Amino acid sequence: MNEILKSLISAFAKLPAIGHRSAERMAVHLLSQKSHSHLRQLIAIMSESDDKLVLCAQCSAITEKTQNPCRICADENRLGNILCVVENPGDVILMEAAGGFNGKYHVLMGRLSPSKKSGPENIRVGELLKRVATEKVEEVLLALNMDVESDATVAYLRERLAGAGVRLTRIATGVPVGSGISYADPLTLERAVSARREL
Amino acid sequence: MNEILKSLISAFAKLPAIGHRSAERMAVHLLSQKSHSHLRQLIAIMSESDDKLVLCAQCSAITEKTQNPCRICADENRLGNILCVVENPGDVILMEAAGGFNGKYHVLMGRLSPSKKSGPENIRVGELLKRVATEKVEEVLLALNMDVESDATVAYLRERLAGAGVRLTRIATGVPVGSGISYADPLTLERAVSARREL
Repeated sequence: MNEILKSLISAFAKLPAIGHRSAERMAVHLLSQKSHSHLRQLIAIMSESDDKLVLCAQCSAITEKTQNPCRICADENRLGNILCVVENPGDVILMEAAGGFNGKYHVLMGRLSPSKKSGPENIRVGELLKRVATEKVEEVLLALNMDVESDATVAYLRERLAGAGVRLTRIATGVPVGSGISYADPLTLERAVSARREL
Repeated sequence: MNEILKSLISAFAKLPAIGHRSAERMAVHLLSQKSHSHLRQLIAIMSESDDKLVLCAQCSAITEKTQNPCRICADENRLGNILCVVENPGDVILMEAAGGFNGKYHVLMGRLSPSKKSGPENIRVGELLKRVATEKVEEVLLALNMDVESDATVAYLRERLAGAGVRLTRIATGVPVGSGISYADPLTLERAVSARREL
C-alpha cells in the first residue's frame, strides 16, 4: 500500500470509534469516486469549519467566530440563573436535541480521569466557579455521564461548590424510556429504586 | 446547531458505515481540540490524497499519479497469466494483506445491482474482456463477494468469458478459519459440504 494512503487511513483511524478497518473503508470510498467528488466536498466543509468554528469563550460549546459568545449564551430568553454543566461540547447538542432545559451551559472540556492524567487543572472548573460567583446563578445542574470517573468529577465539583450558595443537582439515573427492567443492570435498577418518586 | 456544523456532520454521515451519531461525534471531536490540530492534519492528508492519488489506468486499484500503471501492474515478478477480478479498489488491499495471490488484478468498480441501477455498462467488464483478449491471460479468478448480486455478476461474467479460452475460477465458499460449524449459516455449510476436498 502506498504511503499517502496509509497516512490517510491512520488519520481517519484516530477519529473516535473508528477502527482500522472502518478507516480503510472510508479512505478507499473517497478515493474510488469519479473526480474525488465526495473527498473534495469533505475537504471544503472541513476547511470552512476550521476557519469559521470555534469554542464559545463563555460556555465552550461549538459556535461561529462571528457569534461569540454563542447563540445560547447570548439568548436573553434563556434562564441565566441555572447553569447546566456537561463534559464535552457535543453534550450541549444532545441536551438541546432532547429539549427540556432552558438555562445556559458550561462545558468542562473533560472530566477527572486518573487514567488519562486529567486533573482539576485540565478541566474548566475555575471558569465554572468564576461564573457561579459573578453571574446570578441559583442552580448548577450536573449533566455528566454515569460512570466512576464522572461520579468522581461530581464529588469534586460538589466540594468546590459547597460554599457558593447555589443549589446543586444532577440528572436522574434510572431505567431508560422504552426499555424494560429486565434489560437494566443491577446498579441502575438499585439506583432507580432508591430514587423512586411519588405517583 | 449552526449551519456549518450541520453540513460537516452531513458530509461525514455520507461515509460508508457512518451513522448520524458517529458523524456528530467525529465533528465534535475535531472541533473540540486546541487549535483544531487533528482537523488540520486530516485536511492536509486528504488534500494530499486528492492531489496525488488516482485509480490505476489498467487495473483501477488506488495508486499514485507518478506510479501509473500501479506497482502491481508494473511488477514483472507478478504472474501476468492470472487475473484476479474484484469489485472495489479496497478489495485489492484486502487480497494483498491476505497474501497467497501472485498475479495481477482487475477492479470492476462495482457489480451488477438492479437495486442500485448498476448494469454491465456501469462496471469495468469491457475493459476486462479487452485485457483477456490482449494480455496472455490463462486464468481469471473471481474474488467477488458471496451474496445474490455478486453471484449474478459471476454468472454474467461466466457468460461473457465463455468463448475467451481462459480458465474461470472463483474463490472458495466455506466455514471461516477460527470459526466452528455451529456458527455457519445453513447455506454456507451446504456449500462447504458440496465443495468438500480429499484429505
